[in-house]
Amino acid sequence: MIENNFVVIMAGGVGTRFWPFSRNNHPKQFHDVLGTGQTMLQQTADRFEGVCLPQNIFVATNAEYYDLVKTQLPFLTDRQILLEPCRRNTAPCVAYACYKITALCPDANIIIAPADHIILKEVTFRERIVTALEVAQNNDVLVTLGIKPSRPDTGYGYIQFENSDSEAKKVKKFTEKPIAALAQQFVESGEYVWNAGIFVWSGKSICKAFKAYLPKMDLFFANLTPTYINDTEQSLIDAHYQDMESISIDFGIMEKASNVHVILSEFGWSDLGTWKSLYEISAKDDAQNTIDGQVLVYESQNCIIKTPKDKLVVVQGLDGYIVAENDGVLMICRLEEEQRVKSFVADASKIGTQFI
Amino acid sequence: MIENNFVVIMAGGVGTRFWPFSRNNHPKQFHDVLGTGQTMLQQTADRFEGVCLPQNIFVATNAEYYDLVKTQLPFLTDRQILLEPCRRNTAPCVAYACYKITALCPDANIIIAPADHIILKEVTFRERIVTALEVAQNNDVLVTLGIKPSRPDTGYGYIQFENSDSEAKKVKKFTEKPIAALAQQFVESGEYVWNAGIFVWSGKSICKAFKAYLPKMDLFFANLTPTYINDTEQSLIDAHYQDMESISIDFGIMEKASNVHVILSEFGWSDLGTWKSLYEISAKDDAQNTIDGQVLVYESQNCIIKTPKDKLVVVQGLDGYIVAENDGVLMICRLEEEQRVKSFVADASKIGTQFI
Repeated sequence: MIENNFVVIMAGGVGTRFWPFSRNNHPKQFHDVLGTGQTMLQQTADRFEGVCLPQNIFVATNAEYYDLVKTQLPFLTDRQILLEPCRRNTAPCVAYACYKITALCPDANIIIAPADHIILKEVTFRERIVTALEVAQNNDVLVTLGIKPSRPDTGYGYIQFENSDSEAKKVKKFTEKPIAALAQQFVESGEYVWNAGIFVWSGKSICKAFKAYLPKMDLFFANLTPTYINDTEQSLIDAHYQDMESISIDFGIMEKASNVHVILSEFGWSDLGTWKSLYEISAKDDAQNTIDGQVLVYESQNCIIKTPKDKLVVVQGLDGYIVAENDGVLMICRLEEEQRVKSFVADASKIGTQFI
Repeated sequence: MIENNFVVIMAGGVGTRFWPFSRNNHPKQFHDVLGTGQTMLQQTADRFEGVCLPQNIFVATNAEYYDLVKTQLPFLTDRQILLEPCRRNTAPCVAYACYKITALCPDANIIIAPADHIILKEVTFRERIVTALEVAQNNDVLVTLGIKPSRPDTGYGYIQFENSDSEAKKVKKFTEKPIAALAQQFVESGEYVWNAGIFVWSGKSICKAFKAYLPKMDLFFANLTPTYINDTEQSLIDAHYQDMESISIDFGIMEKASNVHVILSEFGWSDLGTWKSLYEISAKDDAQNTIDGQVLVYESQNCIIKTPKDKLVVVQGLDGYIVAENDGVLMICRLEEEQRVKSFVADASKIGTQFI
């Protein structure tokens, strides 16, 4: 029954690696990164049309982004916007959403979806999600979507699975961000997929897993059950959320549980975590430049240029650079050095919080 | 007598090669290019303190810059601001100023000084100007200041002189922007200096020269003499200035006259015509970067970075680039390719006049 399907969009991240486009007060999920006319959050919500009802879409985010969520997804009621008073990684946030949804609908099947991922093939995505929902509804399992790796990327987590004929394959092991040689081995073996951070489970199964692997978190969020029903939990969340262990759902549950299954998928996925990932999925001109802005380009190639539309930008003689400007910050950086962005942000924060 | 000394500051240029800093509605002479707290125009006017009286400083500029001149040099009366209704290169502009000044003071000695040059050694400069004024007052000569060349620059004009013991050496030949091999030869010979475009002459001598070499110009500006006295010439200037031949004072007079003398000078001069010339005279950090702005620099050297103070700029991995932003235009260009700037401006003009 579609009424039992819920999606939790995780929209609380700050997307530091995507600075200066992604900013503390306006992270990347609230931007129209690809210039499609929709923000990443809006695209994520739209992606579940036909999979679950609009009233079953929940967004979990930091309290400071309430207005952004409300503006970008005006169909959400306040009940559907879960506000974290502080950042505690993904496990507490997933727990809050799943315990609340299970209180409201004991037979809920829940999809956890990050707000800042790109999925190019929406039809295939929905088909895979529907398969995952069926598996999760009929079995006490935790399902994750695994992306067939196209390259030995060292920035992703890898999932090793047991080969079988079933749609959902039993997971053997998670490996977070392997070194290059290992990543190469993983890809060649054919036994590994990327962890997309998209999960599907029943409310019952995930609550059981919290009870087993993160019992303090289970205790806290289970105790709030009466308040979820009449939407009065916020003051207790505000008072105690900071005491939660700051741990990811991957590390806290998925890597420990024995009932994790992966559904192999290929739907044009990118976590769009970095400038390079945006460059890779974007359309390019003959010189392999990706340009979003009013830009005159001379003798330049392999660049990603993303600048305000009202500004004129002249780029001459650059090969393999990011040129990005947003809200008072301009960054020029070799694309190969994009991992430096985090340190730029750290240095920028010393100059002024308005720059981060 | 100091009362007879006049200076004409030429402030009508657009400084295209210095784009996007220099703009049609705000050329470089109206900017504080070096970050000293004074615009180049203000510095130029100050440079003549003690050489001529404030009421003897005239500024010749395009009519559209009247407000900029008035604001930056508030001590000027309207009589002292000569407005060209259109651009006709330097000869008509010099003629207008010199004929007017000569009408007001028949014994005038006149210095012609561009508003957009840098002179680092002001004391030496004044000493050379005073020498030039003495020569010009006592002889029917046209004096130009020649700068001892520090390198075989192909962007300047060169003046060949006859060696002699006198302060003002007779000029043999002008050569505008020679090719590299020739410039090298010029510098090695010791017989050449750069043409700084700073001229000194008596009103009588320059009017005589116009009569001889640009007779139509002489006729027009001489006929206006009665109007100069009561400052009523503007309507006639506006009506007929466009009919003047568009020609430089160098080409129209200096290269043709036989009574041109050069006074050798070394006073830290730069015409600041290009980004490279600004880079060369500016202070540099250990990595040979010249930075004016709020800039975080990583693994970068030999760059000139000039960006708005309120913006944060991150530059990583650039060697030998101009990074310049002003008034809605950002330019990133290899310093060695700075001569391309003119073509960037041409392309920018097709996008919008606000960008040039």
